[in-house]
Amino acid sequence: MIAIGVDIGGTSIKGASITDKGEILDRFTCEVDKNDMPEKTIGDLCDVINQFLKEHHYDEPIAGVGIGSPGVLDLEKGEVKSSPNLLTWEHFKIRDFMESRIHMPVKLGNDANVAALGESVFGSGKEYNNVVMLTLGTGVGSGIILNKKIYDGNLHQGAELGHMVIRVNGHKCGCGRRGCLETYASATALIRETKKEMERNPDSEMHKVTKELGKCDARVAFIAARRGDKGAIRVVRNYIRDLSEGILNICNIFRPEVVILSGGVANEGEYLLERVRAYIKSFDYGMVHSPKVEVKVASLGYDSGKIGAACLVFDK
Amino acid sequence: MIAIGVDIGGTSIKGASITDKGEILDRFTCEVDKNDMPEKTIGDLCDVINQFLKEHHYDEPIAGVGIGSPGVLDLEKGEVKSSPNLLTWEHFKIRDFMESRIHMPVKLGNDANVAALGESVFGSGKEYNNVVMLTLGTGVGSGIILNKKIYDGNLHQGAELGHMVIRVNGHKCGCGRRGCLETYASATALIRETKKEMERNPDSEMHKVTKELGKCDARVAFIAARRGDKGAIRVVRNYIRDLSEGILNICNIFRPEVVILSGGVANEGEYLLERVRAYIKSFDYGMVHSPKVEVKVASLGYDSGKIGAACLVFDK
Repeated sequence: MIAIGVDIGGTSIKGASITDKGEILDRFTCEVDKNDMPEKTIGDLCDVINQFLKEHHYDEPIAGVGIGSPGVLDLEKGEVKSSPNLLTWEHFKIRDFMESRIHMPVKLGNDANVAALGESVFGSGKEYNNVVMLTLGTGVGSGIILNKKIYDGNLHQGAELGHMVIRVNGHKCGCGRRGCLETYASATALIRETKKEMERNPDSEMHKVTKELGKCDARVAFIAARRGDKGAIRVVRNYIRDLSEGILNICNIFRPEVVILSGGVANEGEYLLERVRAYIKSFDYGMVHSPKVEVKVASLGYDSGKIGAACLVFDK
Repeated sequence: MIAIGVDIGGTSIKGASITDKGEILDRFTCEVDKNDMPEKTIGDLCDVINQFLKEHHYDEPIAGVGIGSPGVLDLEKGEVKSSPNLLTWEHFKIRDFMESRIHMPVKLGNDANVAALGESVFGSGKEYNNVVMLTLGTGVGSGIILNKKIYDGNLHQGAELGHMVIRVNGHKCGCGRRGCLETYASATALIRETKKEMERNPDSEMHKVTKELGKCDARVAFIAARRGDKGAIRVVRNYIRDLSEGILNICNIFRPEVVILSGGVANEGEYLLERVRAYIKSFDYGMVHSPKVEVKVASLGYDSGKIGAACLVFDK
């Protein structure tokens, strides 16, 4: 069986034909103009998909199209109710709209949940039934997989682990609260703390690293820490403590078999993982009796969303 | 149908015969000596149950015995692995032990989860499918009901919402971490802050209230706040903020239809509820689109555990 998996982003829509073994066959891309109405953006997407299917012939039938969408969704109605990054999208019935134009079943899911599903079926979570994925990027996205199915809260309105407060009265969050995990464990938060430390310490290695990279991004503190810079080590240590406290909360609530980290910061790989693992090991609840929770980085990279969207069609 | 519901506590075991309409028919009690081995304690319980069933005759058959137990459980094995309040209980196979002595099916559940089940089937949660209960007592216990079933994490080792950190590096918690919700929203935490404020302020109305009650318990700050004492109002306001932050985290993760509060502090009733509701209303994530979460107090009181344990037998 083959499905089309589609990942809607703020600047582009990426898609691919994907087998039910999780293999990507062919890819396509559609640009997004944020000012366009959704009918234009998704109308263009449907044209691209129809053209794509004319140009690519497969031995197996195309079972449908899976969509990973940002924003607040109504999965029953197949509707994007609103999206912070696509402001013209208001109560847009994307499923019906697409089905009427591409004439095959369309399945809708939240982008973060769908990416977690992809990792849990074909990526770092494939050996496990209970998986939580945290995407450490501009914000902290999350997807929860319980018994191999997406869990997204009552009426699909939960699973916002990035908006779990870990410091009451902490940093201001875009959601209106203060101290959300997102304001400490996102790449944005890491860059904020990196810059603060650089201001405090003009001799920090982080200034040199920033020049080498041409910008101050989430890699700076990690690179300087690896070189032994004390300020950078402090920034990284604090970041890992806060991320790990979030993961420990997740362990005490869901006790997943694995927590998968993705997004820019997850590229730090083993350096990040071994420190997170050491932290959570020392503070795990019910230490003696509780089953251990693995921490891994995502293995599908930017394809997890597309592959997870296809899984919606395969009903995996 | 009738079942026996049993609630195991640190100082006594309470039980009752309960109909599948949630009505309590007759009650029994068993004292617990913490130093006894579990075979003695539960052997005595079985004798009491057998005697109870000899003395009470019902028109309907007894379908079985449901047990709400504290501690870390292995539900597959029907075993209490350990319990902080019953230190002699180590890998005690309570289900097999009881079934061999009372000759009917025994169902085991965690005490906090079972109490939440009771409230969700016959108490304040009966109109809802998705319920979270927080018990504000010595600690903060929690039970999560998703689609009318207990959700307790992978291998039944999650759902410890009281051990969700809301202040990294906050107050020391018995679990080994710092800043758990339990260290801010339990009755114990409220008493700690009440005493701190009384020390700071020798003229506080709270000293008078403490004298009237004969002790400084979790009611003192609420009573003095109702009388307009500024220090007490501050203590209550901070308590409600931290409790509400915990509830908001729960909303963002599970988006339950209702959060039920039980335990000593929940006796503050509407005074507590209206302030918690106002707080969570002002900081709810995705405010415009997210379904509202009700906050109520438990209606079954100390019977929720017994009734919930009976629900295990009724498979409700």
